Amino acid sequence: MNEDNSALSTQHSELDQWWPSRYGARDQLGTLNEITPAKVVAAARLVRAGTTYDLGRTLHADVPRFEGRYWQQTLVSSAHIINPRKPGGVPHSAGSGQAGGWGRNRVNWVTELVTGTLQIGTHLDGLNHLQIGDRFYNGYRLEEIAEEWGTSKLGIETVPPIVTRGVLADIARYRGVDRLQPGQVVTVADLEGALRAEGVAVEPGDVLLLHTGWGVLWDEDPTRYTSGEPGAGMAVAEWLVEHRVAMTGADTWSFGAVPGEDPERPFVVPQTLNVRHGLFIMENLDTAALAAARVYEFMFVLTHHKTRGSTASGIAPAAVV
Amino acid sequence: MNEDNSALSTQHSELDQWWPSRYGARDQLGTLNEITPAKVVAAARLVRAGTTYDLGRTLHADVPRFEGRYWQQTLVSSAHIINPRKPGGVPHSAGSGQAGGWGRNRVNWVTELVTGTLQIGTHLDGLNHLQIGDRFYNGYRLEEIAEEWGTSKLGIETVPPIVTRGVLADIARYRGVDRLQPGQVVTVADLEGALRAEGVAVEPGDVLLLHTGWGVLWDEDPTRYTSGEPGAGMAVAEWLVEHRVAMTGADTWSFGAVPGEDPERPFVVPQTLNVRHGLFIMENLDTAALAAARVYEFMFVLTHHKTRGSTASGIAPAAVV
Amino acid sequence: MNEDNSALSTQHSELDQWWPSRYGARDQLGTLNEITPAKVVAAARLVRAGTTYDLGRTLHADVPRFEGRYWQQTLVSSAHIINPRKPGGVPHSAGSGQAGGWGRNRVNWVTELVTGTLQIGTHLDGLNHLQIGDRFYNGYRLEEIAEEWGTSKLGIETVPPIVTRGVLADIARYRGVDRLQPGQVVTVADLEGALRAEGVAVEPGDVLLLHTGWGVLWDEDPTRYTSGEPGAGMAVAEWLVEHRVAMTGADTWSFGAVPGEDPERPFVVPQTLNVRHGLFIMENLDTAALAAARVYEFMFVLTHHKTRGSTASGIAPAAVV
Amino acid sequence: MNEDNSALSTQHSELDQWWPSRYGARDQLGTLNEITPAKVVAAARLVRAGTTYDLGRTLHADVPRFEGRYWQQTLVSSAHIINPRKPGGVPHSAGSGQAGGWGRNRVNWVTELVTGTLQIGTHLDGLNHLQIGDRFYNGYRLEEIAEEWGTSKLGIETVPPIVTRGVLADIARYRGVDRLQPGQVVTVADLEGALRAEGVAVEPGDVLLLHTGWGVLWDEDPTRYTSGEPGAGMAVAEWLVEHRVAMTGADTWSFGAVPGEDPERPFVVPQTLNVRHGLFIMENLDTAALAAARVYEFMFVLTHHKTRGSTASGIAPAAVV
Repeated sequence: MNEDNSALSTQHSELDQWWPSRYGARDQLGTLNEITPAKVVAAARLVRAGTTYDLGRTLHADVPRFEGRYWQQTLVSSAHIINPRKPGGVPHSAGSGQAGGWGRNRVNWVTELVTGTLQIGTHLDGLNHLQIGDRFYNGYRLEEIAEEWGTSKLGIETVPPIVTRGVLADIARYRGVDRLQPGQVVTVADLEGALRAEGVAVEPGDVLLLHTGWGVLWDEDPTRYTSGEPGAGMAVAEWLVEHRVAMTGADTWSFGAVPGEDPERPFVVPQTLNVRHGLFIMENLDTAALAAARVYEFMFVLTHHKTRGSTASGIAPAAVV
Repeated sequence: MNEDNSALSTQHSELDQWWPSRYGARDQLGTLNEITPAKVVAAARLVRAGTTYDLGRTLHADVPRFEGRYWQQTLVSSAHIINPRKPGGVPHSAGSGQAGGWGRNRVNWVTELVTGTLQIGTHLDGLNHLQIGDRFYNGYRLEEIAEEWGTSKLGIETVPPIVTRGVLADIARYRGVDRLQPGQVVTVADLEGALRAEGVAVEPGDVLLLHTGWGVLWDEDPTRYTSGEPGAGMAVAEWLVEHRVAMTGADTWSFGAVPGEDPERPFVVPQTLNVRHGLFIMENLDTAALAAARVYEFMFVLTHHKTRGSTASGIAPAAVV
Repeated sequence: MNEDNSALSTQHSELDQWWPSRYGARDQLGTLNEITPAKVVAAARLVRAGTTYDLGRTLHADVPRFEGRYWQQTLVSSAHIINPRKPGGVPHSAGSGQAGGWGRNRVNWVTELVTGTLQIGTHLDGLNHLQIGDRFYNGYRLEEIAEEWGTSKLGIETVPPIVTRGVLADIARYRGVDRLQPGQVVTVADLEGALRAEGVAVEPGDVLLLHTGWGVLWDEDPTRYTSGEPGAGMAVAEWLVEHRVAMTGADTWSFGAVPGEDPERPFVVPQTLNVRHGLFIMENLDTAALAAARVYEFMFVLTHHKTRGSTASGIAPAAVV
Repeated sequence: MNEDNSALSTQHSELDQWWPSRYGARDQLGTLNEITPAKVVAAARLVRAGTTYDLGRTLHADVPRFEGRYWQQTLVSSAHIINPRKPGGVPHSAGSGQAGGWGRNRVNWVTELVTGTLQIGTHLDGLNHLQIGDRFYNGYRLEEIAEEWGTSKLGIETVPPIVTRGVLADIARYRGVDRLQPGQVVTVADLEGALRAEGVAVEPGDVLLLHTGWGVLWDEDPTRYTSGEPGAGMAVAEWLVEHRVAMTGADTWSFGAVPGEDPERPFVVPQTLNVRHGLFIMENLDTAALAAARVYEFMFVLTHHKTRGSTASGIAPAAVV
């Protein structure tokens, strides 16, 4: 397939109707339909060493973030003050060297309060996050599904636990660099070249992860990290759809180069994947250990927390070999 | 082993020092140390049908909850108003039947804001949640590890992704009831009887889940759900430790009967497991489908979101067969 | 003036353009323009006894509230744990009977975290809260003034401190009841009758408060409190505008009867006052003590907290005589 | 009185019991007891021009703040999407140029969600904020008054509306500088000199405000603003108590020089005023306009929002002449 023509045709058709989805007119699962029971069984067969790689980053108030996105957590230790005065409580007794609590077992607890946006840190976007105009995947409209608390369709709770084959395409290694540059577009040639060099082929239902090396800036230079990013171009987006990939993601804060191929179409790569094709994207993955270990094929597992009607879930998927 | 004596001895020794842990004086992993690479490989071998059971409940503002615990989510759709007026934005044009957005691709997005406590819904407790007096697992003290944003040790981010063998003990079925009663104590005889009836044996490194049937009240009667619960007694807690179980959990809001065996020792079961033994507990699991399908042995997978220094993580683990 | 005709004409003209305001095309102050320096001086002259009445209710998590509105506050006492270990910190020393803290002065502090909506409790609505379609007071459009953090015009920070003459119209007393009924419409005859009975006349720039008696349910029966309310009809709304009242408010959760005069026009009374006339409204006032003391004329003072671009501010105005 | 001896004696007695308060053993009002009805009446007599000065700053996410303190506000405009589909709702009709809403009056609304700490921006501290060890004003102990949601005594809701005489001491002008330096201690000589130059005397029940000029950095250099501050020394603190001042405050983020007179006693000035004497403090006041206008005597009004058990309230008091 000619990449340029493909990208062009996408642009020319951008006002056309893209729904119903090939998975059915009311489908909300999108490309996760590609993960069959046989796929799950085959993925489990890839586990031979019992080694697990954690692909998620720890979230805290100071992670790289955008205007309007934030995360705050506050320790709540008031139970240590309140429990000793409950019926059956034991006071913090001076002299004994022992702290009090509730009951003869002197139980206490610590909790926390969190406030923030779910679109932060390592996360999975729901198909209710991005739109073309006011329409989502399968043509759902915002005016139909918006509620005060979230959306009544396509929320992150519609995404089931994921167990499937995972593939890492180490684009940085293929290009012979530590990390790609911001705005640098990953081409189909890059992707296919990297996979060939790794000796793995992408199959329907796979999760395909891109390692660009950009993720090293997460800790090293948070401001630069969010100032731009390398990433897939529209041709790679088409390729993912054609290869019936179930999910994708990279070690970047969005998916697709920023600045992008076409300055007049901001975030068109994730928008196209989510809205037109129902293809799920993970952001801010930590692929460094996997790339360093040259692990290119693995059982991918993702069991995310489900909050009703949310556009994202903070995640920490694992690669198991 | 004599259950009564075991429980008694636990109580008599409750002011004794319980650290260092058998996993080392500075260990933070607790019983997760029992999950070896061989265990991971063996767990993956249990996947033969490719069927996945979701053990997590969807969180929203109206789930059963306690005084002081809450969850609020608010849809944020202001990008639909702001994007059309950005440079390159397309207005919501009257007449065309098409909504505007940013760029020629008219991109828009929806996000959300969340506020609440992590100790709510289906969640995994960190070893920094419960204390005896002011001490945690391995003798860590609150005054050493408290920070404004959480705890500097034992936070939920120290818990790695979990892949191991899972076992469900259907106590309700063994007892011949739909659900156990609040305050009803699960005994070692119940547990061993249920496992025998199921034809499965618990091995070191397993995740052992208890199905009490109480979880059906989550949706049916939220107020009653939190008013009490059936659950493991202290003898079962000892049994879990002796059998080197890696994690446990049930279809209840805490772990252990409420009201408990000893009214003078509130929450002594989870306190003992967490603090003395470093044994992890999951709460509010949805074990109904697993029990209905009589699936008693499975690959257990849990990849939870990691927030720094938190005492819990909202989860939705999966059982895969 | 014929009330029915007035109300009717308002309805007939409801699709007409209502801007620019009589206070100028870019004005954001609305009826607060009526408060002149002379008005401030005259108001201060009303203070003869030095008695202050607090018109605000205390906000907490359990006050009457609507779907989607909430308020949560959490005590944060972690400084008591952290301060003693700071450089120069004094430990909580066993035996001395004294708690530690930071420095030789053993300083500690308690703080709190709040999350919620500003549209709750006793509050002043900004002119950026209600709209007709997408237009605010003076024709400002949502698409022009919406930002992620609030609105760039008409926010509550544009409201200055208020010192002016206040008048209480005790409608309940005039009608000879403890409290009016939900849906009961306060008429111009009620209002003028009550003022005549009190011997006070409304002048331009006054703050006019209505006592309906409904506020007693705030504490007594929170659910009933929000299930409906008595209040001003459209004719009273017109009267307030004609009399150039600067602000109004009542002991109810909105302003105007609920259910209202016209079931096809929900919240048309506050909408008309805010949007067409720039007349400010306070909600959930506590007018009981003022009514009981038969204080009908006073210096009204309101110094509210200013948060940028907010649609409301929690308030506790005072009546001083 | 000899300043040095006074300060010294304070330090020597710092472990002594300071309660009960001179206002009574269970008093929670502290120095606000000094504001008598006669004081209120006299304050109102100071209003001759009808000019109002706003002493509060507008709060937003980017104001100067400390580690752990924050403020976030998010616009909520979902009603514009939801209202048109309610029963009786009018759709956003293409072609008519008019936006829809709920009812024939097409009502819509905008709200917001806020999250943050109350100890930020221009605010009044409650007497439940600072402690010596674990004790507050009048000897109240944290273990007695802490609740999950705040404190059961001394909360900001116990503070009534304030109307009294206000005095501004322009220390910067007296010292002949635009602004004092960080760590620069305001002495009794400075204070008395400034008041003498202004021709005003402080009386019991007054609110005394200090203008140091430091506040100009609030907008100009937020980072420097919070890096230190000029302010009252311990001798001025004693002076305020002796003169029975009802409240004080300055154009700084705390009250008292930072770094302070005694490096071993952090925040001892506000701690002493709050805890030992029940004297209220306002922080981050905007005194610039008042100082520029050379207004030194005025009616001070403060009607703050009351949230249950809070340690602070965001405020915007006014000076009226």
